[in-house]
Amino acid sequence: MKRDKIKQILTDLTEKEVLICAWVRTNRAQAQFGFLNVNDGSTLPNLQVVYDAKLENFQEISKFRVGVSVQIKGRVVLTPNMKQPLEVHADEIIMLGDCPETYPIQPKRHTREFLRDNAHLRARTNLFNAVFRIRSVAAMAVHSYFQERGYVYVHTPLITCADCEGSDQMFKITTLDVNNLPYTEDGKVDFSKDLFGKQAFITGSGQLHGETFAMAFGDIYTFGPTFRTENSNTKTHANEFWMIEPEMAFCDLEGLMDIEEEMLKYVCKYVLDRCPDEINFCDQFVEKGLKQKITDLLNSSFVRISHHDVIDLLKKAPVKWEFLPSYDDDIAKEHEKYITDYFHGPVFIKDWPKDIKAYYMKVNPDNKTVAAVDLVVPQAGELMGGSQREEKLDVLLKRMEEMGVEKDGIDWYLDTRRYGGCVHSGFGMGFERLIMYLTGIENIRDVIPYPRTPKNVQY
Amino acid sequence: MKRDKIKQILTDLTEKEVLICAWVRTNRAQAQFGFLNVNDGSTLPNLQVVYDAKLENFQEISKFRVGVSVQIKGRVVLTPNMKQPLEVHADEIIMLGDCPETYPIQPKRHTREFLRDNAHLRARTNLFNAVFRIRSVAAMAVHSYFQERGYVYVHTPLITCADCEGSDQMFKITTLDVNNLPYTEDGKVDFSKDLFGKQAFITGSGQLHGETFAMAFGDIYTFGPTFRTENSNTKTHANEFWMIEPEMAFCDLEGLMDIEEEMLKYVCKYVLDRCPDEINFCDQFVEKGLKQKITDLLNSSFVRISHHDVIDLLKKAPVKWEFLPSYDDDIAKEHEKYITDYFHGPVFIKDWPKDIKAYYMKVNPDNKTVAAVDLVVPQAGELMGGSQREEKLDVLLKRMEEMGVEKDGIDWYLDTRRYGGCVHSGFGMGFERLIMYLTGIENIRDVIPYPRTPKNVQY
Repeated sequence: MKRDKIKQILTDLTEKEVLICAWVRTNRAQAQFGFLNVNDGSTLPNLQVVYDAKLENFQEISKFRVGVSVQIKGRVVLTPNMKQPLEVHADEIIMLGDCPETYPIQPKRHTREFLRDNAHLRARTNLFNAVFRIRSVAAMAVHSYFQERGYVYVHTPLITCADCEGSDQMFKITTLDVNNLPYTEDGKVDFSKDLFGKQAFITGSGQLHGETFAMAFGDIYTFGPTFRTENSNTKTHANEFWMIEPEMAFCDLEGLMDIEEEMLKYVCKYVLDRCPDEINFCDQFVEKGLKQKITDLLNSSFVRISHHDVIDLLKKAPVKWEFLPSYDDDIAKEHEKYITDYFHGPVFIKDWPKDIKAYYMKVNPDNKTVAAVDLVVPQAGELMGGSQREEKLDVLLKRMEEMGVEKDGIDWYLDTRRYGGCVHSGFGMGFERLIMYLTGIENIRDVIPYPRTPKNVQY
Repeated sequence: MKRDKIKQILTDLTEKEVLICAWVRTNRAQAQFGFLNVNDGSTLPNLQVVYDAKLENFQEISKFRVGVSVQIKGRVVLTPNMKQPLEVHADEIIMLGDCPETYPIQPKRHTREFLRDNAHLRARTNLFNAVFRIRSVAAMAVHSYFQERGYVYVHTPLITCADCEGSDQMFKITTLDVNNLPYTEDGKVDFSKDLFGKQAFITGSGQLHGETFAMAFGDIYTFGPTFRTENSNTKTHANEFWMIEPEMAFCDLEGLMDIEEEMLKYVCKYVLDRCPDEINFCDQFVEKGLKQKITDLLNSSFVRISHHDVIDLLKKAPVKWEFLPSYDDDIAKEHEKYITDYFHGPVFIKDWPKDIKAYYMKVNPDNKTVAAVDLVVPQAGELMGGSQREEKLDVLLKRMEEMGVEKDGIDWYLDTRRYGGCVHSGFGMGFERLIMYLTGIENIRDVIPYPRTPKNVQY
């Protein structure tokens, strides 16, 4: 027997017989009748079910606690004059699974901290129902954007010896018995005995591997989990997160910004269209004005300005900075906020001083800056970071030497510059940063199903 | 200036001015004219470009080597009577990036082994262009199937201390200096000094976490990388692979099989519709009859039969088995082959002896078997494995005790049975197994961009 999903019932708005399986969110019982509010996870709103004393187990039903799973047979009745558009009049209600009074998720306000400590149950609250559905729909939006445009989705490896972020930022992995390690003659751990025959890591980026595939398919993207070992307890850092890294052959910095802007707008629109209840919920309970913020972004044309000109603006600004703006330095959060306020919208900051950026970025003709670009948006700050890549082998090698990057492990990567190299560009977008932007949630721990942060690997 | 993609040019079939950026696959130069076959990765077929001595750099062009990246301005000319539907008459051809004679990917047959040793270049061959595009499109098919049906995509954690496959199968991770480890008083490694404050692993399954989200959203799926430490050098084992793990509340074993069958057919049809060139290529050069095999699957109704009845069939079969069929045992590859041949199509084998299956599977009323199901398909063998889950807490606890599964680390998981538990089911599908089925490729190393196998973590 097929169950009817609440989302479908609320969409159809048709009077008919239905079979529902769901969980009880509230139960208001009176002497002769009662109301169950149930949710089956298919949509954010609950369904109101009316039951009355004609049901033979009426007494039993009226004692169903919050969290109980139930099967309900009944009829949809439209109620256009009530708060909700319809309700179900129950002909039969059966308890499928009981739930004790000690159930932690009660119909009241729980703190985010309490819910983090009940991460395996928090998706049963309205807030996390909204957040994790938006996360799912946004992931689909990302795939749809790239696949509709012919990009090839590449599963770059997570286990690796090469990494564009540097191995001091990577977790080491092993199959060796850590309490009984083999050693070489000079007293180091003998990784030749390990599964891969050498020390291996889990990756912080798929970019280098992605570039090799862009040289075959033209346009590619990655979308997968990424790891950093940072011992950092902030609202925006996690040790495991998901990242999207597109890479496009025959694409320069201007083309890159076009794609970033188009993609971000596409994803925002996709989520607005498909998650109206969830966005409204977050607008009401998480970030007032959320929907307007996203709509404004859709209607804006992103400003493009050089790092140099940003510093000029910051220096002229009538603001007492905590961090003094400098032509040679990164910009601080307070600067990002000023700039997005100044332009009333998202801003691409491009052409950064080369000494503070990665070795693989294209050196500009001035030999002082690189063709890198960060997208900063109102409230969320930096959302994407990308660059045109240095396609000239000799320049790239020189940059690697200057920055102390080992050539040995990534000689295969350098082949992209040896064999039919071309102008190409790519960017990275932290998926959690996007979800925080789309929901208004301020702590990264609340947009990841089971967050991993220092000292925290529960579940 | 926007480039025209070869896929679009071949689809439009329109005479017009175009700008192409691509790589040279072959170059046949004669005295007064020449032909470049170029590919930009947007599609499998090459584009033929005709150039003649009127171009001022004609002599230079005629020496362009295989692998060179080029920019071509020219006109599309339809050639309905030729082998290819159109060609481009070049007005301008510029070399973007040179390629030396030593370029490993020449227009000739390379062995799969040679190409594995050039994994960073092999996507530039027709074979891997086809395979990795099919992989990308199949991934999208999986997402589309579940998202269209309202499933929530859940990013279950990769770093974990809990795992449904057991920690002996998991990689250990650490941020400690392995050559200078801290020890506790009793001489064990002191993981309280590690980033997470205890020993952590990378996961072999997202099922347990997935189940907790199914109890909130009803229908969920995971799709992400998975790891096993198996020191196994076979054609079907890799230490890193991608897995899809859907989990459905209010769904029993029969419902599970319905979903598995519908999903597999959906994905096969999606790939057939969108990758005709790639499927034809694999049909011609990898597995003769591939397209027919997939079409047959689409038109078949999958057989459902119990493990017991399969053993009956095997025992009666006029075959001398290497492994004797047994009612208490797993079935061997030779058995799977016999069964799919016998039924001329995919077969669900269900109700397995409980002693050879996992603790979380639903114990059947006979108390001897569990409501588990494996889907075996012609040629590829087992493609999916799933089960109805044991939703009764007392039975589950007893099974855990019988099988020696520690309760401590997964008490949170048991809450799914304490708070509004319900009948639920899920399955796992190894994504590489699916791609091998869809391409005919027999070695898992050739369907993963950068495969990880014992002693092999190059790139």
